[in-house]
Amino acid sequence: MLVYGKNVALEVLKNPKNVRKILLQEVFDDKKILSLLKNKQFPVFIKSKKEIDRLAEGVHQGIILYVRDYQYYSLAEIVNEHSSFLVILDHLEDPHNFGAIIRTCEAAGVDGIIIPKDRQVGVNATVMKTSVGTLDSMKISQVANLSSTIDYLKKKNFWIVGTALEDSVDYRNIDYSGKIALVIGNEGVGISSLVRKKCDFMAKIPMYGSTNSLNASVAGAIMIYEVIRNRK
Amino acid sequence: MLVYGKNVALEVLKNPKNVRKILLQEVFDDKKILSLLKNKQFPVFIKSKKEIDRLAEGVHQGIILYVRDYQYYSLAEIVNEHSSFLVILDHLEDPHNFGAIIRTCEAAGVDGIIIPKDRQVGVNATVMKTSVGTLDSMKISQVANLSSTIDYLKKKNFWIVGTALEDSVDYRNIDYSGKIALVIGNEGVGISSLVRKKCDFMAKIPMYGSTNSLNASVAGAIMIYEVIRNRK
Repeated sequence: MLVYGKNVALEVLKNPKNVRKILLQEVFDDKKILSLLKNKQFPVFIKSKKEIDRLAEGVHQGIILYVRDYQYYSLAEIVNEHSSFLVILDHLEDPHNFGAIIRTCEAAGVDGIIIPKDRQVGVNATVMKTSVGTLDSMKISQVANLSSTIDYLKKKNFWIVGTALEDSVDYRNIDYSGKIALVIGNEGVGISSLVRKKCDFMAKIPMYGSTNSLNASVAGAIMIYEVIRNRK
Repeated sequence: MLVYGKNVALEVLKNPKNVRKILLQEVFDDKKILSLLKNKQFPVFIKSKKEIDRLAEGVHQGIILYVRDYQYYSLAEIVNEHSSFLVILDHLEDPHNFGAIIRTCEAAGVDGIIIPKDRQVGVNATVMKTSVGTLDSMKISQVANLSSTIDYLKKKNFWIVGTALEDSVDYRNIDYSGKIALVIGNEGVGISSLVRKKCDFMAKIPMYGSTNSLNASVAGAIMIYEVIRNRK
């Protein structure tokens, strides 16, 4: 995975073992970053601005990092006797939302995130950037089929909680004391109908404005902190 | 204010009274947007791709909209006998966070947002975009001095609540039943020391991961919904 820019570089260099190599523009003079490149295992190559421009697709600020792709976990590594709170992303599209949710999950102590393989943003450079260094301590599993995964979680005694504005109960009135798998729906269409049918509870976050919509990562965060409210 | 792109166009055209004029690239053929341009008060001009490229600084998808700048409210319009919940942004830098907070405030029924004039992102095109159409129903006031504004709010019987990880109490153990002004701090340094000294309560959102950080708009959303938890 190829990422660029000084802020991303500072994040990535917190875990230098993930870095494969770095390309610097010939006049790169950020002292803080340069000091972080000392005595590391990865090679640094100096390139012309033209070459860096060609490789980066956005604002690179003179630095490109080649980092190890995220290594997904198996479902068995996430669903075990120690896990009691999982988050399922039901075909999220926006990498900023995905990154923000990873960050919230990590802060809240969520045991793992499950995403579908298809029609769902994977762990890319933007996700890495917006998760600001929390990716390394978050277990994410990619599954071929959300529906059968939910069936499996139910057998493992997880309660499946979704969110919706209609045919749902106030999110403050649900008992989250058991094992919980919280579903966060797509930004546009919400939770898919097949997944919704399998939810044990549908929660509603009350809204009082004219638009009746919260950002997916914001709604997810409110729900995540509601689940851990009486647990930790 | 100049904004561009199809998604933004769709948002902006929900309130066509804010549009001053629109520039379209000669081959623009998005039927949905074109149908929204019918019988409107604003003029449409057809331009060459070269001219559109020159005016837009990012991905424009063939459409540029000139929209009315956001008209800030006076403090008196926000602080009155009807307002009981305000949000203060203490030098937020990221327009995405500002936009997301506007969206959450609108959904939660917050009565107004107060921002400082200096060293704070104002209502720009990115803020407009990320607030997805909620800007028109949210009152935002720009003040010269946050510190004296807080003194004024205290005289008006507002309790000032900030967030911090240290020297703070669990956010679930604060009485939010009175008039509340919630301070959301800067992404990097949090709440400034001068503002912090004036806070009546400092709230802590518990975190269980290794990074101890939540995105400013996520932490803000958790606090906002905590304040309205027992009020609405």
